[in-house]
Amino acid sequence: MMNKGLVYLVGAGPGDPQLITLAGVAALAKADIVLYDFLANPYFLSHTQKTCQSFYVGKPCGACSMPQDEITRLMIFYSNQGKIVVRLKGGDPFVFGRGGEEALALAEAGIPFEVVPGVTSAFAVPAAAGIPVTHRGLAASVSVFTGHEDPRKRTQTRDWLHAARGRGTLIFLMGVEELPRLARDLRRAGRSSATPCAVIEWG
Amino acid sequence: MMNKGLVYLVGAGPGDPQLITLAGVAALAKADIVLYDFLANPYFLSHTQKTCQSFYVGKPCGACSMPQDEITRLMIFYSNQGKIVVRLKGGDPFVFGRGGEEALALAEAGIPFEVVPGVTSAFAVPAAAGIPVTHRGLAASVSVFTGHEDPRKRTQTRDWLHAARGRGTLIFLMGVEELPRLARDLRRAGRSSATPCAVIEWG
Repeated sequence: MMNKGLVYLVGAGPGDPQLITLAGVAALAKADIVLYDFLANPYFLSHTQKTCQSFYVGKPCGACSMPQDEITRLMIFYSNQGKIVVRLKGGDPFVFGRGGEEALALAEAGIPFEVVPGVTSAFAVPAAAGIPVTHRGLAASVSVFTGHEDPRKRTQTRDWLHAARGRGTLIFLMGVEELPRLARDLRRAGRSSATPCAVIEWG
Repeated sequence: MMNKGLVYLVGAGPGDPQLITLAGVAALAKADIVLYDFLANPYFLSHTQKTCQSFYVGKPCGACSMPQDEITRLMIFYSNQGKIVVRLKGGDPFVFGRGGEEALALAEAGIPFEVVPGVTSAFAVPAAAGIPVTHRGLAASVSVFTGHEDPRKRTQTRDWLHAARGRGTLIFLMGVEELPRLARDLRRAGRSSATPCAVIEWG
């Protein structure tokens, strides 16, 4: 019987090729297969062996990407062949990265896996713009939401309407399309119109 | 006139020596001086040159650490001598790391600096325990607080009491001492006693 392979769910960080971790590079260097899902800097793939095959499985906009089921199927298919598979994701796999779903699917299929956390874009992109997400005397907490919510669900809207009543930093990922609605709802929830804010696109 | 040096405010990540970024390693490799403030794995310092001097300036418990003013003074002193200084911090410098204060002090002193984000412990420590901080259908947002708040201030308490009314993941850093109070106040704010939770110490 063939040995099972191994899957690494790796966070590549916010995009800068220097912001991947040593553990992420080590996983790429061992990989037989890389499945990557964002407009990755080709530099990330330069860490792989010459024999490694890499597949692009998605776009950050959500459109035209490979269905999640198909990505999971590929991970299971290759690792069942004894391959070392790296699933390379932007930011951190467990922060709005659907890494939890992939981890569950692998566990159910009996595939060994390891999670390699990454620098989350939610905090690194403001940092690159000079904005600390917490700051003594100004913001003693930070909350992260996705601004790109399925309008039929709005399951998290209540979360951020509650958080808007506090004074902590609020971060909305992928929020540009929903910006007018977000700003209106935040003011309605009690945030002052004078609250400093930054809008960062293509961070 | 002597050239000014440069300060790198570097996040070392959650403690695993493999979870520092390539940019963090590159900054350490250039450093003349390293100021580090946590129970750092000696492995981090192995990235430095032989001529580099390293100083331990703090403990994670907050007690017995060098006062913040003194750390800032050292950064300014050495960079004014033309040195490359790395301020190595656990997690991410801008996430409860006081990196914002240090950045402001450097800017006021006219010292050039760069921020190198790190993997935040707030998300990586739960990940190491197999817990995604967001998960489709369960937690569509995540909020980070410090559990170790100055009891005379409680400036952020309102933030998390608001957030407790939502359904997102709540993370309290350094919260072990305040655990009974946190659990009681969360229930009072409306979180069900049946809410799954994890307590991780020395992550």
